[in-house]
Amino acid sequence: MEKYVYFFGGGKADGHGAMKDALGGKGAGLAEMTNAGLPVPPGFTIVTSACRLYFQNHNQTPPEILAQKDEALAKLEALLGQELGDAEKPLLVSVRSGAKFSMPGMMDTVLNLGMNDTVVEVFARKTGNLRFAYDSYRRFIQMFGNVVMEIPKAKFEHVFDGQKKKKGVKLDTDLTADDLKAVIADYKKVVRREAGKDFPQDPLVQLNMAIEAVFRSWYNPRAQTYRRLNKISDDLGTAVNVQTMVFGNMGDTSGTGVGFTRDPATGAKEFYGEFLMNAQGEDVVAGVRTPVPIKELEQIMPEVYHQLHEITTRLEKHYKDVQDFEFTIQEGKLYMLQTRNGKRTGPAAVRIAVEMVQEGLLAPKEALLRVEPEQLNQLLHPVLDESKPLKVIARGLPASPGAAVGRVVFTADEAVVRGKAAPVILVRAETVPDDIHGMEVAVGILTSRGGMTSHAAVVTRGMGKPCVAGCGEAEVDEKKRQIKVGPNIVKEGDWISLDGSTGRVILGKADLVEPDPHSGAFAEFMKWADEARELGVRANADIPRDALVARRFGAEGIGLCRTEHMFFAKDRLPHVQRMIMACKDTQDPKEAAKYEKERRAALAKLLPMQRKDFFGLFKAMDGLPVTIRTLDPPLHEFLPKREELMVEIAILEARRKKSPKTARLKKLLEVVEGLHEFNPMLGLRGCRLGIMYPEISEMQARAIFEAACDCQKQGIQVEPEVMIPLVGDVKELQAQKEIVNRVAQEVFKKKAVEVKYLVGTMIELPAAALSAGEIAQEAEFFSFGTNDLTQTTFGISRDDCAKIINAYVKAKIWPADPFAVLDPKRVGRLMKLGTKEGRAARPKLKVGICGEHGGDPASIEVCAEAGLNYVSCSPYRVPIARLAAAQAAVKKQMEKGYTTA
Amino acid sequence: MEKYVYFFGGGKADGHGAMKDALGGKGAGLAEMTNAGLPVPPGFTIVTSACRLYFQNHNQTPPEILAQKDEALAKLEALLGQELGDAEKPLLVSVRSGAKFSMPGMMDTVLNLGMNDTVVEVFARKTGNLRFAYDSYRRFIQMFGNVVMEIPKAKFEHVFDGQKKKKGVKLDTDLTADDLKAVIADYKKVVRREAGKDFPQDPLVQLNMAIEAVFRSWYNPRAQTYRRLNKISDDLGTAVNVQTMVFGNMGDTSGTGVGFTRDPATGAKEFYGEFLMNAQGEDVVAGVRTPVPIKELEQIMPEVYHQLHEITTRLEKHYKDVQDFEFTIQEGKLYMLQTRNGKRTGPAAVRIAVEMVQEGLLAPKEALLRVEPEQLNQLLHPVLDESKPLKVIARGLPASPGAAVGRVVFTADEAVVRGKAAPVILVRAETVPDDIHGMEVAVGILTSRGGMTSHAAVVTRGMGKPCVAGCGEAEVDEKKRQIKVGPNIVKEGDWISLDGSTGRVILGKADLVEPDPHSGAFAEFMKWADEARELGVRANADIPRDALVARRFGAEGIGLCRTEHMFFAKDRLPHVQRMIMACKDTQDPKEAAKYEKERRAALAKLLPMQRKDFFGLFKAMDGLPVTIRTLDPPLHEFLPKREELMVEIAILEARRKKSPKTARLKKLLEVVEGLHEFNPMLGLRGCRLGIMYPEISEMQARAIFEAACDCQKQGIQVEPEVMIPLVGDVKELQAQKEIVNRVAQEVFKKKAVEVKYLVGTMIELPAAALSAGEIAQEAEFFSFGTNDLTQTTFGISRDDCAKIINAYVKAKIWPADPFAVLDPKRVGRLMKLGTKEGRAARPKLKVGICGEHGGDPASIEVCAEAGLNYVSCSPYRVPIARLAAAQAAVKKQMEKGYTTA
Repeated sequence: MEKYVYFFGGGKADGHGAMKDALGGKGAGLAEMTNAGLPVPPGFTIVTSACRLYFQNHNQTPPEILAQKDEALAKLEALLGQELGDAEKPLLVSVRSGAKFSMPGMMDTVLNLGMNDTVVEVFARKTGNLRFAYDSYRRFIQMFGNVVMEIPKAKFEHVFDGQKKKKGVKLDTDLTADDLKAVIADYKKVVRREAGKDFPQDPLVQLNMAIEAVFRSWYNPRAQTYRRLNKISDDLGTAVNVQTMVFGNMGDTSGTGVGFTRDPATGAKEFYGEFLMNAQGEDVVAGVRTPVPIKELEQIMPEVYHQLHEITTRLEKHYKDVQDFEFTIQEGKLYMLQTRNGKRTGPAAVRIAVEMVQEGLLAPKEALLRVEPEQLNQLLHPVLDESKPLKVIARGLPASPGAAVGRVVFTADEAVVRGKAAPVILVRAETVPDDIHGMEVAVGILTSRGGMTSHAAVVTRGMGKPCVAGCGEAEVDEKKRQIKVGPNIVKEGDWISLDGSTGRVILGKADLVEPDPHSGAFAEFMKWADEARELGVRANADIPRDALVARRFGAEGIGLCRTEHMFFAKDRLPHVQRMIMACKDTQDPKEAAKYEKERRAALAKLLPMQRKDFFGLFKAMDGLPVTIRTLDPPLHEFLPKREELMVEIAILEARRKKSPKTARLKKLLEVVEGLHEFNPMLGLRGCRLGIMYPEISEMQARAIFEAACDCQKQGIQVEPEVMIPLVGDVKELQAQKEIVNRVAQEVFKKKAVEVKYLVGTMIELPAAALSAGEIAQEAEFFSFGTNDLTQTTFGISRDDCAKIINAYVKAKIWPADPFAVLDPKRVGRLMKLGTKEGRAARPKLKVGICGEHGGDPASIEVCAEAGLNYVSCSPYRVPIARLAAAQAAVKKQMEKGYTTA
Repeated sequence: MEKYVYFFGGGKADGHGAMKDALGGKGAGLAEMTNAGLPVPPGFTIVTSACRLYFQNHNQTPPEILAQKDEALAKLEALLGQELGDAEKPLLVSVRSGAKFSMPGMMDTVLNLGMNDTVVEVFARKTGNLRFAYDSYRRFIQMFGNVVMEIPKAKFEHVFDGQKKKKGVKLDTDLTADDLKAVIADYKKVVRREAGKDFPQDPLVQLNMAIEAVFRSWYNPRAQTYRRLNKISDDLGTAVNVQTMVFGNMGDTSGTGVGFTRDPATGAKEFYGEFLMNAQGEDVVAGVRTPVPIKELEQIMPEVYHQLHEITTRLEKHYKDVQDFEFTIQEGKLYMLQTRNGKRTGPAAVRIAVEMVQEGLLAPKEALLRVEPEQLNQLLHPVLDESKPLKVIARGLPASPGAAVGRVVFTADEAVVRGKAAPVILVRAETVPDDIHGMEVAVGILTSRGGMTSHAAVVTRGMGKPCVAGCGEAEVDEKKRQIKVGPNIVKEGDWISLDGSTGRVILGKADLVEPDPHSGAFAEFMKWADEARELGVRANADIPRDALVARRFGAEGIGLCRTEHMFFAKDRLPHVQRMIMACKDTQDPKEAAKYEKERRAALAKLLPMQRKDFFGLFKAMDGLPVTIRTLDPPLHEFLPKREELMVEIAILEARRKKSPKTARLKKLLEVVEGLHEFNPMLGLRGCRLGIMYPEISEMQARAIFEAACDCQKQGIQVEPEVMIPLVGDVKELQAQKEIVNRVAQEVFKKKAVEVKYLVGTMIELPAAALSAGEIAQEAEFFSFGTNDLTQTTFGISRDDCAKIINAYVKAKIWPADPFAVLDPKRVGRLMKLGTKEGRAARPKLKVGICGEHGGDPASIEVCAEAGLNYVSCSPYRVPIARLAAAQAAVKKQMEKGYTTA
């Protein structure tokens, strides 16, 4: 028969620390601590599969589980010589949740279970502490009533506060045993009234009810939300730990506390924590009384303090990680209630990892797994100077890390205008894709609506720009152009500061401190990462400034330079538009030749500008490869919007104005209409542009090679990689490659110098991945464009479908937004297939990724699995990608069974 | 060494009839006929690979080929006792092209090669026919000058006509030998002037030049166009046949002719053809002299006639197919020059196939391969009466077959109005779903934009209505209500005729011929097809009328009923719009509930209408399965266009009109804006609608099951198959299936009857195909939606990309429009993979296709290969699909080596 219940106690446990799947984190820890001979109150753990069976069994615990529980209970009672409900030696237990992954405070706990009208009297008699006995009983009724019988807390609090008022006392501890007796009587009435039945006096009934309540709490809304945010599967279920109660509220030699083996904020190796004497655990957490720093325990109970320090230091060595522990002192005796790996800030995580290696506790490869890649964000962005006073006026969600100071603007257009004179912070109820130009110029974003995955949050994280999102306190009035936060009114042009790492909104200009990403610990840590990883890391950068940032952050090349960003510059757009105005259809060869001549004339104006761009980029990346993608977006993006033109013309005509302007607009509209597409994403873009208008590719190739030759002559080492986008068939690539090669030879001849270069392609259509073997016969490298590949694989537009994606993630149709986290099942499958078949055709094929996913740790793992050579991401995510790549490599080695030491 | 030259003659040939790859069709035929002991003038064939090597070798014939040719020439000269250029016994030869697939008249031929100033005199002396000798020589110079030396024909014709004029004669034969001598002298001058060098007198030089000219003619523009239209690969190359000349112009006992063993127009078993006495081959073809029916040869030369009849009858039996032959009679002796399988009309093809089976010549399975599936179109639609003159004013794409005659209208509304009085042809730049009511009443559709899978093309094919699409020459001016085609202006109300099978647009009322699709031969033929095929054939039909047509054409069920077409009907659109107006976003649960209530109210109005639709469809398909797809298109398709609303409002406001209308339009615009998507194809559509608004799926499921129960109660046998569109993840299907199943149970309970049904899904996204194994755990059937699957696999929109697709096909990047012919490499691969992995999860999974490709023969072969259970196509294509399916099965059997008899 399957084992559902695991006993721990008497120096030995049925389970052990590696059984987190079955016992949950807490249960595994209790078993491990018990086996290690630590003072753990004995008890038993009901495994996570029991929780799943409970739900499958229509919210009924199957009888075999109940039977095993009864057996364990009997063993516990025998061990302690106590019994639940016994009139002589009553046993009291706690009933706690404990999932595989820590979900602090998200599920339910019941303490003091076993109390009833009889037991409380025995307890009072035995301990000689009447007040303690009745307080324990009333706490139990309150907790059981709320957690198990689902009666709102406020109902109990009302009674309790009433009693305090009646007695004219301030502190809970000022109530006498008799006062508490009265409270208990009233509590029972609350239960009867609210639940429609009496508070159960039978401790066995209490236990069964409490166990099932903990099972049920797996699906309470806050647990579900937590799991969604932390990407924890709903299918896991929680274990239930039933453990002998120890009491921190048994008088002045009792107490309870929590602690960390190192400072979770800074990482400093200091015994860290806090405690309360004469209190139970929830008093520490609830913040009703102010706890005392743990150091002071040394004064109060030096022996206990040293025992605790010794035990937790041992635990840290045992688990090779910072421990977050809970303890209780009952009448001078220390009990360990829980230990787990402690959560910590980014800087702390890096410091701890590095110091543990220095202490010989960890091998560098193990240390790499101790830092979440995303945590590095906190080391890469400026932070507020906390030594100066800050006027915090509101708090929102810490949506994108870093701090920013700027003048408030309320529209994207205003951001562009004002952004030229001073840094601006864009404030919106919510941002939309249309705001992107404003978001680009703003130094920070503040929104009053939207969560951690709202448009503002996602886009700013990509930009490495601070964002405070969903700041509900701030009433954003876009019409009046002001924010109202309580009594404060912030008007357009006023200075504010944001802290995207904590969600704080600060009035006025705060001082910023640039973090030093090259501090000793960080540099050491990243060196290990670079040694461990197999994947290269490049950056997506279009301009020298971004390229230099990327290089500083450790990028080993440019994986994607989007040439279209250069086309939008003010001095270029007119030439681009002139070219597009000549992209007309005609059957007449003479007319066609005329249009082509006109396009070539416009492109000739762009050539020197593009050459200069590329020169700067090559120079910034001296010695490293630079991948340049030929023009990708639909041409209409460079023209005014169709509907706006239509409206403008209609208005002019309605006013009966026959001006040259009307005629000019109509001519423009004609071109825009000619380019209009119902689904531009699936239209004339990517290599299709270069095939329909080869002179565009020609100009770009010329600019690339002229710049490369000029660089090489100046001693700058260049490795251009020309990348053709949106290829679906090898013949498209052939046609474009032919142009690139021809122009290269022309330029080399003219400049009398030869530059080594590659021609490759994006793999961003299923068709490309599915014919990768053919394409690799022409392509010298592949770069997976997973944004478009995700769009086409799922047939979903990321620009249009935020609402659907949110709904899908919420409804668990998708585990995550596939544009944020690479879908391994379908998109990842295409990547694996494409890489494999590409390499079969060309064994040395270089394969990378340049979609947004290139900076996402989970996605990087998929890339490592698919056997890619490198990932490419935005400059600010380069260190994150380096660490994620290292972790992927270390995990792979571990799976293969290599030792990490 | 590889054999490049194959000799034939003296009763024996190096090659044989099965060597079409190497010898081309003509060369294989000559070898086969020689081996069969037929009177074939001897010669040799240079293989197709020589042509490829010629191009690879920079348009130079490699020396080993020249050497083999010289050897064969020596053998030929030895056999005949004649020599090229010999002063005693000169040899004359023809040099002809001959590709694997017949390309009649597309490539070049040179006759009488070997003539020069000396030979002509020998020839004159030997034959005693001066006139014949000089005529042969002047013909040779003209042909050689034109074909080999690339001098325009007109230059020679000018000289020849000048001579006739000078002599005052009308017929070529009226010119004397001396006249022809003068012509020859002038022809030589033409050659010197135009080509810059003398006409070559050395017959060996002539031969080498002629062979290379024939090679080159493989890439002449008309040959390339022909290959593109007929999907013949450019890589094949042509063989060259060098054959001893025989002369049909050697006087009154000589002649030449062409013929068919059966009538290629009707299929009647009649010896069919025409000939000319005292003429060479091109005289018959060129139409300079009017040829005589072949029957008359029996009077003139009964022995030759009977020999010819006997030989060709033998050939027909030998090849088991109608023969298209060429013959020459030289001084009373019959020579066979060529034989090949004859091209024939659709009705002829069917009749011949059936009669050959009756004659015991063919097995039914072989007969099935004798008819091109597309040819059946001619048996299913009215055709133009080609015996009357037709004034063709433009040509577009043959988008939907059949012919139609009607008055021109430019709007759907006008079509409805005018359509009551007379047949109308709807002319639009492009049709949109809003035009559907006009398309329904029109007898034919003409559009100036859009390709073979444009809206107009798809819808009309579904309706079995002729359509000429993408007719760029026709400038459609919807405002002026006229079409401008070159000099012709067609105004509203004018009569035009369309031929949707060829793309012709004809001025005025043409006469139509109604075919009889249920003639005896056709019915017999289709019976064999049904016996042979393994694929089922269903139809895509939305309304009972179409369903009945489909059934009449042999459909075995409905593979796709698009419910959205029902939503556009006039009585429904207001309810649909009311529902959409309530598809609003809100965070407020109360408001959300209000909107949902409003949506449900509107849907309640639609329910009885949908139920009635489905009842009709089930009734029409009594006993057969009916697949109903839940709502698929984006909701904004049911609302006015965004830009039109914007313009209307702008105009009203510019005129300072603050009317209730403005307010109403603004409210409407707000909803339209809310639904606006940059890429609606990748937006809120398909099952995403039913997931965001479950009440839509609920209403549709209710209508389906209520109708099904009502039918069953009336003794109508129903098999509903509910199909969920645009699924990419099994959980989407799960969510929708849950609704369908729940509603089904509710309805069955209410109606006290149970109906068997299936719930399945479209596989129309790469994501679906790539996770087919998971999806099949929920799906009871798959239906490949290859329109969308092609769009997403290639990332190309069929609505927007006609121009790109045309350019790609022209540039040979794609072998064909992937929306017309299923791409086997990528889309087909996904289908195979999806089918395989789906069946692995659910062995009895039913798999079909309901994209446009379901009616395309080449695509049906891919479906058969992928192991599908059925294809579904528009009703009028059902017989074509039945035949294509049968051919796929027969071919598969043949590949497996089964005998077909």
